[in-house]
Amino acid sequence: MNSNHIPHVVIIGAGFGGLETARGLAKARVRITLIDRHNHHLFQPLLYQVAIAGLLPSQIAQPVRTIFRKQKNLTFQMGAVSAIDVEQKYVKLNGSIIAYDYLVVAVGGRTNFFGFESVEKYGYQLKDLETAIKTRNQLLSMFEQASHEADVEKRKALLTFVIVGGGPTGIETAGALAELISHVMKKDYPNLNLREAQVILLEASASLISFYPAELREATLRLLKNKNVDVRLNSRLESFNGQFIKLADGSEIESQTLIWTAGIKAVEVLEHLNVEKAAGGRIRITPTLQLPQHPETFVIGDAAFLLDEKGQPLPMISTVAIQQGAATAKNILKLINRQELGDFHYKDPGLLATIGRNAAVAKIFGVSFSGYPAWVIWVFLHIYRIIGFRNRIIVLFNWAWDYVFYDNQVRLITKE
Amino acid sequence: MNSNHIPHVVIIGAGFGGLETARGLAKARVRITLIDRHNHHLFQPLLYQVAIAGLLPSQIAQPVRTIFRKQKNLTFQMGAVSAIDVEQKYVKLNGSIIAYDYLVVAVGGRTNFFGFESVEKYGYQLKDLETAIKTRNQLLSMFEQASHEADVEKRKALLTFVIVGGGPTGIETAGALAELISHVMKKDYPNLNLREAQVILLEASASLISFYPAELREATLRLLKNKNVDVRLNSRLESFNGQFIKLADGSEIESQTLIWTAGIKAVEVLEHLNVEKAAGGRIRITPTLQLPQHPETFVIGDAAFLLDEKGQPLPMISTVAIQQGAATAKNILKLINRQELGDFHYKDPGLLATIGRNAAVAKIFGVSFSGYPAWVIWVFLHIYRIIGFRNRIIVLFNWAWDYVFYDNQVRLITKE
Repeated sequence: MNSNHIPHVVIIGAGFGGLETARGLAKARVRITLIDRHNHHLFQPLLYQVAIAGLLPSQIAQPVRTIFRKQKNLTFQMGAVSAIDVEQKYVKLNGSIIAYDYLVVAVGGRTNFFGFESVEKYGYQLKDLETAIKTRNQLLSMFEQASHEADVEKRKALLTFVIVGGGPTGIETAGALAELISHVMKKDYPNLNLREAQVILLEASASLISFYPAELREATLRLLKNKNVDVRLNSRLESFNGQFIKLADGSEIESQTLIWTAGIKAVEVLEHLNVEKAAGGRIRITPTLQLPQHPETFVIGDAAFLLDEKGQPLPMISTVAIQQGAATAKNILKLINRQELGDFHYKDPGLLATIGRNAAVAKIFGVSFSGYPAWVIWVFLHIYRIIGFRNRIIVLFNWAWDYVFYDNQVRLITKE
Repeated sequence: MNSNHIPHVVIIGAGFGGLETARGLAKARVRITLIDRHNHHLFQPLLYQVAIAGLLPSQIAQPVRTIFRKQKNLTFQMGAVSAIDVEQKYVKLNGSIIAYDYLVVAVGGRTNFFGFESVEKYGYQLKDLETAIKTRNQLLSMFEQASHEADVEKRKALLTFVIVGGGPTGIETAGALAELISHVMKKDYPNLNLREAQVILLEASASLISFYPAELREATLRLLKNKNVDVRLNSRLESFNGQFIKLADGSEIESQTLIWTAGIKAVEVLEHLNVEKAAGGRIRITPTLQLPQHPETFVIGDAAFLLDEKGQPLPMISTVAIQQGAATAKNILKLINRQELGDFHYKDPGLLATIGRNAAVAKIFGVSFSGYPAWVIWVFLHIYRIIGFRNRIIVLFNWAWDYVFYDNQVRLITKE
């Protein structure tokens, strides 16, 4: 390259990792093209709140163009990347070829049904705004149907909600849904006996949120039981036909609503990428976050597979993606300046999960909290992390309102 | 009926008319069943704001169950009425038969394409949340496509937005869209030359908002031109194929976005009702708002056709529906108490339409206003009329924010 050439950095994905990389290069002498399938960045840790009618889609999403209005070295393009060629150094988008000098693959993941085709067909998921809104419509529709169902057994089946997966998303959804029923739906459906409703959380292993310390795992179990969530550990799903859920031990649950939160795998575009992969199609990268044979290509976030100092795979969570995004921006600058690249070291900022109103579990600076103090930390940390000052104010106002009046804001059923 | 029988009032439609009827019967010794296809009441006068990304769906919609939480004599049922039998006095809903003593048909209207099948197929409309969101997605997608279109003619076509119908909805949409482009999109798409964008308002007759006084019609035309809306009077549509709009004078407009606001007709369920109808399938009623042969059946709002004192048909607007709802509740009580029914007299509360930021036209207590004073009245009147204190606060906050920062809150493109 001659010295007048301004390096072109293409970033695929406007999730946490892609956004942080782009910001880290704000003052660099580079040209950035940021690509995403959607026109907005999504604050995924609160997506389950959309599904339980606690937040509006627009409150956890921000248009990418608005975020980068002031960053003049960045161009946004909306569209789905159909191919990545790491040999020829280009990506295909909307029928065009976009050549790059440096590529950052920050495409995130998609739901992994582990081959359960019946669940993929009939189940609900929480992966993007569309699937969350679909889940919300389903939950609310079940109450409407139950309200004019005379048969008690059929009514109970309509009001049985099954969440599969005892990770953070699963426990947060279960807790919030149990509360929606006991505090809000009770008022909207005075003629329904909501003791007929039940929230069941299925976990295949012997414990919830397995990467949390033991005292928090126990606190989680206790807090969920307080909220009347029926937690079933060592319960492995066998099949779901839209009406009945079969478990591996032969038992059956009658329900039309199965929310699958049990896995993430690589997105389609990575499948055709001829590089070394780990479980779920995640791409194996070097400690400097590069593709082994292609130093100008970085892979970060859920799409990447990297072991930490203890030899454990880094979890697929937003804090890892954010830190990797910052590290990638620094390493790209070092590549441009022909300096030695730095290895990525994940700094664990702590663990935090909420289980409905007034209840959460957290581990921060090595200290475990649960109950109300953890919940207060959760509320403020999440409001702080939401992008956009305006959204912060509105989310804070909404939560304060819900808290005081026990009233979730949006229970609209919208057609698809 | 014996004196222990509690009369059953069935109200179809939770729009302005149905809601007002139900409220008017809150203290009556009746059993009310309120039915709607959606689980929410929609504040339709602000629906165009959803289409131009100015308001969120949930800010102009309120769950019906929440509205009537405290009214113990009312049951809500969500579903589409498949048949009305005014002889046998029942309606069919979700496969069940619901018998009534009194029926209120307040089903509203749906878009009348006047036989333009091509417009029905390729055009956009503003009738409910779904069609408004679809319109919003289309508008925003055109900017995204234009941002990576190198051909100037194709780009201009993508950025040409045509609104058909010079009624209140048409002028409000045109004004608001022109402003979205010049104030908000300009910042989000710094690389697009938005002077290539145009908003065209087509009206088949010789004037806009024809039932307004002449000085307001002229003010409207002036205000729209100030905002760079290309108003074309005496322009009759011929066809639209999704790419080109043909006009009756032989001219063509290249555009993918046609928003049809030019007519309303009766909803499907009324088509099979064997009673006398006026233009657009609206049902002819007595001055007491009853069906001529069926005094226990009332028809109100957009579904009804009634002449005013001057022999003019009452307009299909929310204030008529609200006043008819209140009158119907009173007449039902009079029927129950065997008193003489009162004729309906529409009290015109004035006319009001907004044309974007700082500009509106109004006629209140016989006085015509335009420009800024009319706009201030419009803002506060609409906030006052939105149901739900919480929504009022949030809408007020949003509008204040947009006003100060020239920034519409939601420009999310959501998949269908």
